[in-house]
Formats: sequence, structure tokens, C-alpha cells
Amino acid sequence: MTDSLIRLRDALREFAAAREWEQFHSPRNLATALAVEAAELLEPFQWLTDEGSRNLPPDKRVAVEHELADVLLYLIRLADKLEVDLERAAHAKIALNGEKYPVEKSRGSSRKYDEI
Amino acid sequence: MTDSLIRLRDALREFAAAREWEQFHSPRNLATALAVEAAELLEPFQWLTDEGSRNLPPDKRVAVEHELADVLLYLIRLADKLEVDLERAAHAKIALNGEKYPVEKSRGSSRKYDEI
Amino acid sequence: MTDSLIRLRDALREFAAAREWEQFHSPRNLATALAVEAAELLEPFQWLTDEGSRNLPPDKRVAVEHELADVLLYLIRLADKLEVDLERAAHAKIALNGEKYPVEKSRGSSRKYDEI
Amino acid sequence: MTDSLIRLRDALREFAAAREWEQFHSPRNLATALAVEAAELLEPFQWLTDEGSRNLPPDKRVAVEHELADVLLYLIRLADKLEVDLERAAHAKIALNGEKYPVEKSRGSSRKYDEI
Repeated sequence: MTDSLIRLRDALREFAAAREWEQFHSPRNLATALAVEAAELLEPFQWLTDEGSRNLPPDKRVAVEHELADVLLYLIRLADKLEVDLERAAHAKIALNGEKYPVEKSRGSSRKYDEI
Repeated sequence: MTDSLIRLRDALREFAAAREWEQFHSPRNLATALAVEAAELLEPFQWLTDEGSRNLPPDKRVAVEHELADVLLYLIRLADKLEVDLERAAHAKIALNGEKYPVEKSRGSSRKYDEI
Repeated sequence: MTDSLIRLRDALREFAAAREWEQFHSPRNLATALAVEAAELLEPFQWLTDEGSRNLPPDKRVAVEHELADVLLYLIRLADKLEVDLERAAHAKIALNGEKYPVEKSRGSSRKYDEI
Repeated sequence: MTDSLIRLRDALREFAAAREWEQFHSPRNLATALAVEAAELLEPFQWLTDEGSRNLPPDKRVAVEHELADVLLYLIRLADKLEVDLERAAHAKIALNGEKYPVEKSRGSSRKYDEI
């Protein structure tokens, strides 16, 4: 069975091709749409406490699921247009973060890597 | 073999647990970090034309790959904390978008669904 | 003496004209730059508690002042290109918010107007 | 007559005090709300060309005016809570930008200061 990220990439290619939307999907436009969706995902959390954000009321939860999906879809589409392998890039970034945040130095701390 | 999104989710769980970062990873904090990363991804595109955004210089390309990865990592982590199945949510959203943007009405148009 | 918003608008006009930057200052580009700056302003707050955000360390405070300024500058420039009177628009919005959030119904509550 | 930024600051203080909203207005919360509003301001521009963004249809124009106002209001409120003099910070930033972007080197170029 093909992988989830590949299946979604292919579904989005088909979706865009059927609507002749390739012309609008420049990396710049997709990066803009992604940032807008990420802010829409943040919107329902903005006046919540940390604790409140762990217990979303059902209607907010549905909205949040849609926004999570929108962010993923634009992200996959943008990576596709830039010919970036998202999975590989993500694992490489985790390895890099592991170097920037050694376990001993960053345990229990939310400081940035240039402050530890 | 397990799926890419599951493998990344598990790698992030392990990364956070080793550093005792669970305490910082409220949905609210993660949604904030995601929005910040999405804007960092937009940053290198902001003064480019559509055409320029299709031909990034090599140094910008590397930076963009890292930002794509950061967005994916926070997205997976946030979905994990909210117990949302990202793949399922993404396919459900594609189906919903198919209803909002019927092929016949949206072909070659970048208008929003409430304007077509 | 002319007003602060007018003085800043004029200083920015002069700055852009001297550098022949009018060509880059489409409303779309300026709105993108503004969103990027707003996220950069959010960045130093992202892992802070509410209390921590009230007591920024001196180096973060300087960075935050610069980002506050950047947001204001792009905002004034964007309003100028769109021929919007920012001060008038802001007072009109406060009046509108007063109708959406009547004192009696919204006292001590962070709920959105469509939830009160 | 007092200055526009001071009048708006005072109107917002009164608005928040009447609703007992001081408790929600931590710098962190206000910076989050500001970033959300900046993305809402970007939203109507996201699929437009530069040229299209210079000629907004009337309904989009009204929405954009409201979002411009929202960004300004949160910005003034955030600066107030941080005790930052916005006007002074903005003029200081223009002076700094003048050093980063000397006229001779940046004329007609949209490159960042570290690339010129």
C-alpha cells in the first residue's frame, strides 16, 4: 500500500488538474495560503488557557480538525511544487533538532537553542 | 512497514519525552508555534514574483526545506495532542472541498466557494 | 503640528520613493510582509506564560520593540496604498466592537460575540 | 489636540476596563490576536495578482478596512501593555532601516539587507 503522504499528494494533484488550478499554485501563492490557514488554526485557541486548549468544546473541535487538514493539504501541495520529499525533510529536521537540543542541556527547559 | 505520518508522530513523542517537553506542548502552544513556522516559511517568498518563487536560489531552497519540515512536525504533534487522525481528516477535507468547488463551476477560477 | 500617523506615512513615502520601491509595494506584497512581521512579533512570546510575557528580559524587549515598529510601518504603508484613513477606520471599528460586545453581556468574559 | 495614537490608546483602555478585559490582555495573548488579525488581513489578497490587489472590489475593500483597523487596535493595545512608545519606536526603526538599506545600494532592488 502506498504511503499516506503520497496518497494525499496524488489526490491533490488530481483535484487541481481537474479544476485547472495549476496556474494559481505557484509556491508563493501556496505559501501564502498555508500561512493564512495556520492562523485560522490558531484562531480558536487565542483566548484559551493552556488547560482550556486541552479540552475543546465539540464545535471548536470540528473546526480545528478542518483547519489541521487545510494546513496539511497546502503543505503537501507546496512541497510537491518545490519537489521536496516531506518525509525525508522532516526526519532530517528531527535529527538536526536533536543536535541543537541535546537531552542533557534542554531537559525541562523551553529555552531556544541559542540560549541554552 | 508503518506509515510515514505514524513514524513521525512516534519520533516526536520520543523526542519530547526524552526532554520532558510534554509540559510545554499544550495545543495552544503548539498552534502558536505552527503559525510562527508557517510565517517563517512564507518569509523567503514575500518579495518574489510567482515566477521567481518557482526558481528559488539554492540557499533559499535549503531554508525552505527546513521550514516545510518544521510546519509538518508541529502539525503532527498538535494533531497527536488533540487525538486527531491527520490522514483521515485530510481525506475528509478533500471530499468536502470537492462539494464546495464542483469541477464545472470552479474550472480555471480562483474565486472562493461563496463567490462561485 | 501634524499627527503621528501622517508623519510616519510621509516618512515612508519618502523612504520608498528614494529607493524606487514603489514597484514592489503592491497591497498584496505589503499585506504579506505585514503578516510575516506580525508572526515575528509573536515569536518571542510563543513559549512564555502570560506572566512571563509581562516581564520580558531586556534583550527580548528590544527585539519586540523593533517588531512592533515593523508591523506599524507596513500597516501605515498598506493603508496608504489602499487610501484608507487608518485613524478613522480604527475609531469606526471600536464603535462597531462596542455594539458586538455590549458591556453587560461581555463583562469578564473572553467569549466571541457570536457566543455571548 | 492630542495625537491619534494617544487617543486610540485611551479609547482602548476605556473599552477594556469597562468590560473587565484587562485579565485577558497579557502581552502574549495580544501578540497572538495581532498575528491572527494580520493573517485575516492577508486572506482577501491571497489569490490576487499584484494588479488585482490594487483594485479591490467594494465588498472586499470594506472587509480589508476592518482588518486594517483590527491590526492597529491590537498593536496599540500591545504596545500600551509593554509600555512602548509606538511613534518613537517607528521613527527609530525607519532610521535603522535607512542604515541597512542605503539609497545607492538598494535602489530598485527588493533584496534583503544581508544580500545587498
